[in-house]
Amino acid sequence: MFEKVLAAAGRLEGVAHRTPVFTSRLLDEQSGNAIYLKCENFQRMGAFKFRGAFNAVSALSPEDRQRGIVTYSSGNHAQAIALTGKLLGVPTTVVMPSDAPAVKFAATQAYGAAIVSYDRARQSREAVAQTLMDRHGYTLIPPYDHEEVVAGQGTAARELIEETGPLDYVFAPCGGGGLLSGTAVSAKHMLPEGRVIGVEPELADDATRSFKTGQLHTVQNPATIADGLRTPALGQVTFPLVRQYVDDMVTVSEEEILATLYFLWTRLKMVVEPSGAVGLAPLFHRKLPIAGKRIGVIISGGNVDVRMAGELFAALGG
Amino acid sequence: MFEKVLAAAGRLEGVAHRTPVFTSRLLDEQSGNAIYLKCENFQRMGAFKFRGAFNAVSALSPEDRQRGIVTYSSGNHAQAIALTGKLLGVPTTVVMPSDAPAVKFAATQAYGAAIVSYDRARQSREAVAQTLMDRHGYTLIPPYDHEEVVAGQGTAARELIEETGPLDYVFAPCGGGGLLSGTAVSAKHMLPEGRVIGVEPELADDATRSFKTGQLHTVQNPATIADGLRTPALGQVTFPLVRQYVDDMVTVSEEEILATLYFLWTRLKMVVEPSGAVGLAPLFHRKLPIAGKRIGVIISGGNVDVRMAGELFAALGG
Repeated sequence: MFEKVLAAAGRLEGVAHRTPVFTSRLLDEQSGNAIYLKCENFQRMGAFKFRGAFNAVSALSPEDRQRGIVTYSSGNHAQAIALTGKLLGVPTTVVMPSDAPAVKFAATQAYGAAIVSYDRARQSREAVAQTLMDRHGYTLIPPYDHEEVVAGQGTAARELIEETGPLDYVFAPCGGGGLLSGTAVSAKHMLPEGRVIGVEPELADDATRSFKTGQLHTVQNPATIADGLRTPALGQVTFPLVRQYVDDMVTVSEEEILATLYFLWTRLKMVVEPSGAVGLAPLFHRKLPIAGKRIGVIISGGNVDVRMAGELFAALGG
Repeated sequence: MFEKVLAAAGRLEGVAHRTPVFTSRLLDEQSGNAIYLKCENFQRMGAFKFRGAFNAVSALSPEDRQRGIVTYSSGNHAQAIALTGKLLGVPTTVVMPSDAPAVKFAATQAYGAAIVSYDRARQSREAVAQTLMDRHGYTLIPPYDHEEVVAGQGTAARELIEETGPLDYVFAPCGGGGLLSGTAVSAKHMLPEGRVIGVEPELADDATRSFKTGQLHTVQNPATIADGLRTPALGQVTFPLVRQYVDDMVTVSEEEILATLYFLWTRLKMVVEPSGAVGLAPLFHRKLPIAGKRIGVIISGGNVDVRMAGELFAALGG
């Protein structure tokens, strides 16, 4: 699988940002480790999702690209596919629930994608996408359950480790497992002694339960502030990869996510979305018996309505 | 004066962050130029002010350092002096108006500085500081009107130009002129053909008027959102430097500052304070007949209450 990451890195060269790796004395003191943050909030369209989307579309045949692609997402993957389509001249259609926030429609349309909305009470997004595929010959690029999407996401950890050299641990947030499994593929190849830890909100701990039991668990509409991690379950591609390459999974509370997020905004001066703080949260709160180690962490994205910061951080008090 | 910048760079080596230089395709398209942002919002304590404060204190004799230092500021310079004192083991006292926001007291005290508050209606901050100097033998390190403070601020532009190579222009915001004159000293030495432009809020255009007339103009409590640039006037050190080394001064409206700030938060994912967006605002809004050039811009700081983002950006509409 790592050779797919290398191929993805070749396709992304000069297209995706080689995002910076941030360090912070304050953060190191707080966590008791040397922390290296791979800042995918500074990625194009504001999240790592651009890597997987661009790689997967680039890997299609010219004929498939010409017919166009379809996806379902109301989050960062929708914008990633839309931007990819614009850059590669590929027609893109995004299936979104009709009750998605207007700002999500606008952001996706701004990159030039067509949007097909559907009624969540009466239709499934998969069925809507299938109809479009049957009718127009579109190729589906799903948000995470796809080898080339996973390979693209794995390029972030590869860049991180290229820049930092040996790391003892790599932490990444887990929703559908695209980022986590890609990260694990790269880290396990480049750091044979290194350990890969996936992190989930306690309220959306399906992957942690799936990882620990070997049975696929699901959650429905978990109420976590980490909206990028509300995915119901790992996928057919990502579940085996997570089981094979990830060393452990941990969960964090909503309060822990929020306090970590606030630190990133106020002390590191980075706009990060709630999901983007999840990978760092167990280290920031010293939840694990890890000290004095060199640790890479994927900060996954920064797409959040900054005007809502007051409401977002209100629960912190102070 | 540039040799003082070089000496400052030596003192700051390994102590100040060598902050990253950010670029953005979106920003280049928006402005019609190739823009290089020197991100001093990622500097220690969140602003370029650390450079000048640390340099000025470091340049004191051991005896002066032992007796301690005093300054007056309720902004970033207060925290810069406090952090410097902590790092160098120098006792620091900050004179602040008794009606300064509690958050400013707390941030300065958190770094270990003593605070002496005074009643703005009955006392001047200079007189309060002088009393402390007479009584305790403290040395005054003012916020901008001091050669070693200016030299420290000039190290940011030096790092920027070292990293980017030749630039056609360098833009910096102007309050008391410490950052602008330091920037100009470095830029004019390193880029003999380059032009240096200072930027002020229209509501606080004292330095622009001073620059253009050769007479020192002042403003009192200007109502600009760029709170770091509410300084009443250039100083005895900075006014001649600005006149000698700066090529032109321009002003920007409150709306222009706010729109530029919003872009930096939402598209570049950086937490920047309003003053920090001022240097970029004329380029973002294409206010000047400059196109196709290589332009460095100092983003001066990121110390802003992020919970107030809703109120801050409310005036933008949309």
